[in-house]
Amino acid sequence: MITVEEAQEIIFAKIKTIDSSEIDIQDALGRVLSEDVFSERAIPPWANSAMDGYAVRSEDIKNATKGNPVELKVIERIQAGVKAKSVLREGEAIRIMTGAPMPQGADAIVLQEETEESDSGVVKIYLSVESGESVRVAGEDVEIGDLVVSKGTKLTPPAIGMLANIGMDSCSVYNKPRVAILATGEELVDLKEIPDEGQIFNSNSYALAAQVEEAGGEAILLGIAKDNTEDLVKGIKRGMSADILITSGGVSVGDFDLVKDTLQDLGNEINFWRVRMKPGKPMAFGMLGGNPFFGLPGNPVSTMVSFELFVRPSLLKMQGLKNIFRAKVNATLKGELLKSPERRHYIRAVTTFNENQWESTPLEVQGSNILHSMVKSNSLVLFPEYETKLEDAQTVEVILLDDPNINNN
Amino acid sequence: MITVEEAQEIIFAKIKTIDSSEIDIQDALGRVLSEDVFSERAIPPWANSAMDGYAVRSEDIKNATKGNPVELKVIERIQAGVKAKSVLREGEAIRIMTGAPMPQGADAIVLQEETEESDSGVVKIYLSVESGESVRVAGEDVEIGDLVVSKGTKLTPPAIGMLANIGMDSCSVYNKPRVAILATGEELVDLKEIPDEGQIFNSNSYALAAQVEEAGGEAILLGIAKDNTEDLVKGIKRGMSADILITSGGVSVGDFDLVKDTLQDLGNEINFWRVRMKPGKPMAFGMLGGNPFFGLPGNPVSTMVSFELFVRPSLLKMQGLKNIFRAKVNATLKGELLKSPERRHYIRAVTTFNENQWESTPLEVQGSNILHSMVKSNSLVLFPEYETKLEDAQTVEVILLDDPNINNN
Repeated sequence: MITVEEAQEIIFAKIKTIDSSEIDIQDALGRVLSEDVFSERAIPPWANSAMDGYAVRSEDIKNATKGNPVELKVIERIQAGVKAKSVLREGEAIRIMTGAPMPQGADAIVLQEETEESDSGVVKIYLSVESGESVRVAGEDVEIGDLVVSKGTKLTPPAIGMLANIGMDSCSVYNKPRVAILATGEELVDLKEIPDEGQIFNSNSYALAAQVEEAGGEAILLGIAKDNTEDLVKGIKRGMSADILITSGGVSVGDFDLVKDTLQDLGNEINFWRVRMKPGKPMAFGMLGGNPFFGLPGNPVSTMVSFELFVRPSLLKMQGLKNIFRAKVNATLKGELLKSPERRHYIRAVTTFNENQWESTPLEVQGSNILHSMVKSNSLVLFPEYETKLEDAQTVEVILLDDPNINNN
Repeated sequence: MITVEEAQEIIFAKIKTIDSSEIDIQDALGRVLSEDVFSERAIPPWANSAMDGYAVRSEDIKNATKGNPVELKVIERIQAGVKAKSVLREGEAIRIMTGAPMPQGADAIVLQEETEESDSGVVKIYLSVESGESVRVAGEDVEIGDLVVSKGTKLTPPAIGMLANIGMDSCSVYNKPRVAILATGEELVDLKEIPDEGQIFNSNSYALAAQVEEAGGEAILLGIAKDNTEDLVKGIKRGMSADILITSGGVSVGDFDLVKDTLQDLGNEINFWRVRMKPGKPMAFGMLGGNPFFGLPGNPVSTMVSFELFVRPSLLKMQGLKNIFRAKVNATLKGELLKSPERRHYIRAVTTFNENQWESTPLEVQGSNILHSMVKSNSLVLFPEYETKLEDAQTVEVILLDDPNINNN
């Protein structure tokens, strides 16, 4: 049986970056930029006032003090958005608002608070300032040709603000991978139905769809295929037009696990069937009609953990992200854990950051059918393949699945 | 001038939880549940097999060993989804697949690997098992009446899986707050236009819209109001039908800052106009037509930081979340910082978790017009009101704005 890392290596080698499209920046939050964006403009485009005050020639006021103010003639008043008509000459000032372009001839701004203007259009300057004082120079945020947002960046609010800042109303992003999801199992009924005895609701499709969406993909629910070849072939064929096809269930060794045979009949080159992990040992990966196929196990926890380790990073890689893995931290284990050797266990745990360390408390119930263990945890403690005991208070490796609970202090 | 905490207290006292709606669970990722969800069903609904194998009476095989197997007659074969027709009696076994209901009379499962079935319908059992072995009892994941997801929970993939698990195809969530955004300023032009000298692109509306969306709201862009009362009144009136109205710019003390007068004419009860912080000192909050109004400053960094501190937690509170603040950590400062006293500074920084500590490196350029400082940072270092110096390597408080960069190790 191959390890998780071996399985990941096989999978990620087959995952290619998806095509990209031009979209409106208003739709771009969370999408991944597919090209470097260089600015064709300087920001600000021209020197401008950083404050409300008076544009002056610093030379004119070099001796100004509170006791001995310099008087200047106010020749014009400009707000942001307006260029001064006048050129400033000796003995003159222009009333200026924040963001307005520096008038020709002026080289500094005196803040309003350091001045007093009379009704007769003369302003007293109470403070000398250096040349360049309170002036924002052209290009101090962005220079022409600057790389403002790089290819492979997940677009955050500041990045979108920056695109608007340089005048872009659209940008090129990687497409959302379309992920077809097929649940398999004779025991499954859909949410609107009433289960008979022996039947349960199909929950995997909905959990997987949310995982796909959270990873930036678009889920296509194919419903349920019962445990017969006809149903499976029909479902799988429908899913082959998507960028990725996921099934849940039917990849174990049971008498009724038909997915394997069906896939092989359809020409799927299966790379492996089992991974040395728990939950989630039964797990298939291959290429089907040129696209990746993931045969995930049927138990709800196994399905979600397998998605986390194999499908989520694949979706991020398709979207051009460089960092495709969740954050991993070293944490102090709260409590003891025991297992038999051979498989690596992924233990559902609550991990918090307290003062100066991460702490992980495993949930009591860890069965692969216990979905509430996923709801209540925010992390997975790694219990290595051949270890049989993890001691209370020892350091363990932990994958953070969700926002870490960092205690405000 | 009031402090950030005083301003937050005034604001959050006015923020009420928004109405809720019933939505499909497929649309519920990231939404906040507006009612406790209790299960009307047990999960699993009935005892079932945890493994592929044989359902037996443990009493029948208590002496079974590899050398001295017990032979049982295989009377039926059942897969998941199917209830056995037979009742198991002494000397009998039922072939059973994972998830299939336990047959009447059976009390344990022997794994397939510990058995050998002959063509004549007899199975040799090589291992004795305890009563209950490999049996999942009814309700071991969820019992009838269990609180499975609580009111105020942000719906994650496992929570959505859990709703499906108990058969819910829709759930009640808080509405997305509709946030109207009005940019003000004579200097602004929209993205499709060509700016004249003195004009710049309206970037604040797009950055704010992305911040609104990231906080679970729905942005309504009202475009640009020029610096005249008519334009402002028109824009503000259009925004009054939203749940929240945000303006950017026009709340400073400049000659052309008309927002203040306009709002007062429209009956806005303004609670304050300035906050002891940088970037972002000019900042208005009040109630307008019964809804919160935020007058944010016009500089792009000031706008975004003010949104972070005041609007984002308001949106989260409206959506019924309990924890409305970003994570705050103590970090080691890399480099020295200086400022004048009086205002608290929020220093844009890159914060990472390395080995066992958080480290924050401030960006070099911190001007409130330098939008690239927001793009390149992931956190805000707090430089307290009356401090004038933060030493290299000292411990500082840091707000994490984005995924913290936790170094995989």
